[in-house]
Amino acid sequence: MKRPLILISNDDGIQAPGILALVQAARLHGDVMVVAPDGPQSAMGHAISVSTPLRVTPGKLLDGSPGFACDGTPADCVKLATGVRAIMPIKPDLVISGINHGNNSSVSCIYSGTLSAAREGAIQGYPAIAFSLCNFANDADMGASREIAGRIIGEAIEKQLAPGQLLSVNIPNLPLEQIKGIKITRQAMGRWVEEFNERIDPHGRPYYWLTGRFQLLDEGEETDEHALADGYVSITPMMHDLTEHHRITEYKSWHWSL
Amino acid sequence: MKRPLILISNDDGIQAPGILALVQAARLHGDVMVVAPDGPQSAMGHAISVSTPLRVTPGKLLDGSPGFACDGTPADCVKLATGVRAIMPIKPDLVISGINHGNNSSVSCIYSGTLSAAREGAIQGYPAIAFSLCNFANDADMGASREIAGRIIGEAIEKQLAPGQLLSVNIPNLPLEQIKGIKITRQAMGRWVEEFNERIDPHGRPYYWLTGRFQLLDEGEETDEHALADGYVSITPMMHDLTEHHRITEYKSWHWSL
Repeated sequence: MKRPLILISNDDGIQAPGILALVQAARLHGDVMVVAPDGPQSAMGHAISVSTPLRVTPGKLLDGSPGFACDGTPADCVKLATGVRAIMPIKPDLVISGINHGNNSSVSCIYSGTLSAAREGAIQGYPAIAFSLCNFANDADMGASREIAGRIIGEAIEKQLAPGQLLSVNIPNLPLEQIKGIKITRQAMGRWVEEFNERIDPHGRPYYWLTGRFQLLDEGEETDEHALADGYVSITPMMHDLTEHHRITEYKSWHWSL
Repeated sequence: MKRPLILISNDDGIQAPGILALVQAARLHGDVMVVAPDGPQSAMGHAISVSTPLRVTPGKLLDGSPGFACDGTPADCVKLATGVRAIMPIKPDLVISGINHGNNSSVSCIYSGTLSAAREGAIQGYPAIAFSLCNFANDADMGASREIAGRIIGEAIEKQLAPGQLLSVNIPNLPLEQIKGIKITRQAMGRWVEEFNERIDPHGRPYYWLTGRFQLLDEGEETDEHALADGYVSITPMMHDLTEHHRITEYKSWHWSL
């Protein structure tokens, strides 16, 4: 069997420890190509660059291994890699993103640059996986995550994760031997409650830092949040159809006349 | 009955003709408060600003009426408006966004800044509606859209669109008398096929412009794209749970061991 080609991106930038761990995990199963942002792009959602051009330059991961650095968003990286032959002459067999420094569970799925890179791969028709570790520190221990990512990539390749399918993997911040297993979950309902921090600049003008705390609005035991709190790796199958299908009939009964 | 307070944002910026049309439509039904980006923020997806602080300054719409201009993303605008008492002392009864210059149908829902502003309102627990006109021109005729937006806002208020519910409205680029009616739809499957335009800068270095053409992958008659092509206004109920629920059982059967 041909060795798979795995495209890797992230949102913490090509110099983040997390993407190096993911590259190391992916190398066990295939050849890797890295196209990642040239700096941090967290919370970029599924932003793409339509008003500014993009540049791609040779870059290096933390261990010196080569990749491409792009000055766009995570989704831009995947669009460029799969769309420009000069960057990636062969189409990838799998698109993966991460390992994010910080979880991307519950409503954070919609803000996450890590997920948007993988989602862009899925939209373009590739199988895709996003990986996130529940530890925001830049020096988080990536040992367990690297091991787990390797096993999940292996399983996805063996089971032939289908084109267009997207899995979001969240890994609890625990040593490998304390992680109980893997659960397939759904996204928990929740939201970030904003707590803006107002400051006054030296010129007397106010500015605001966005802060907030996560509020879980879901008691379900089958959720990503529940699995993580219980010491399990969470894998959530994700889609990009945002239609709330079960409400279509209800809204059809409204009086929509022109 | 108390006159509703309607928060209005967009992604084309406070000076866009589209947001003025939406303000005019909303004034028929309530008091309005505008907090919009200080410049164009198209294709920002659901990006939020976590690494840079936000500024909010008094701004003006095209007709001189007052609003707030924010240097963040569309989602930031709604977070700030609903989170900072100095900006919006009273919580809104409805959050609306648009009228976008360009459609936000099919897969564009995931890239759209217009939708992200309304979606942020829904996540924060308000009823929310995004409006988009199928014409990207800055000088697009907003007459029919203003009229239609007014009627939809009225119906949503009368029927008490529920907290957390999000409707995405797309309006065909036709005179009012040629629009056949309103259809409740689902998001069509589709994708943007990238066609990067490579150029060389004066210093000999390449850069890329992201272009592309939309590829519809869905023959369904109940989709947003079908309704619009047929001359109907499309209203799609949208959610922010991205879980692909119907695949959970399938993935549970895989061999996920640690």
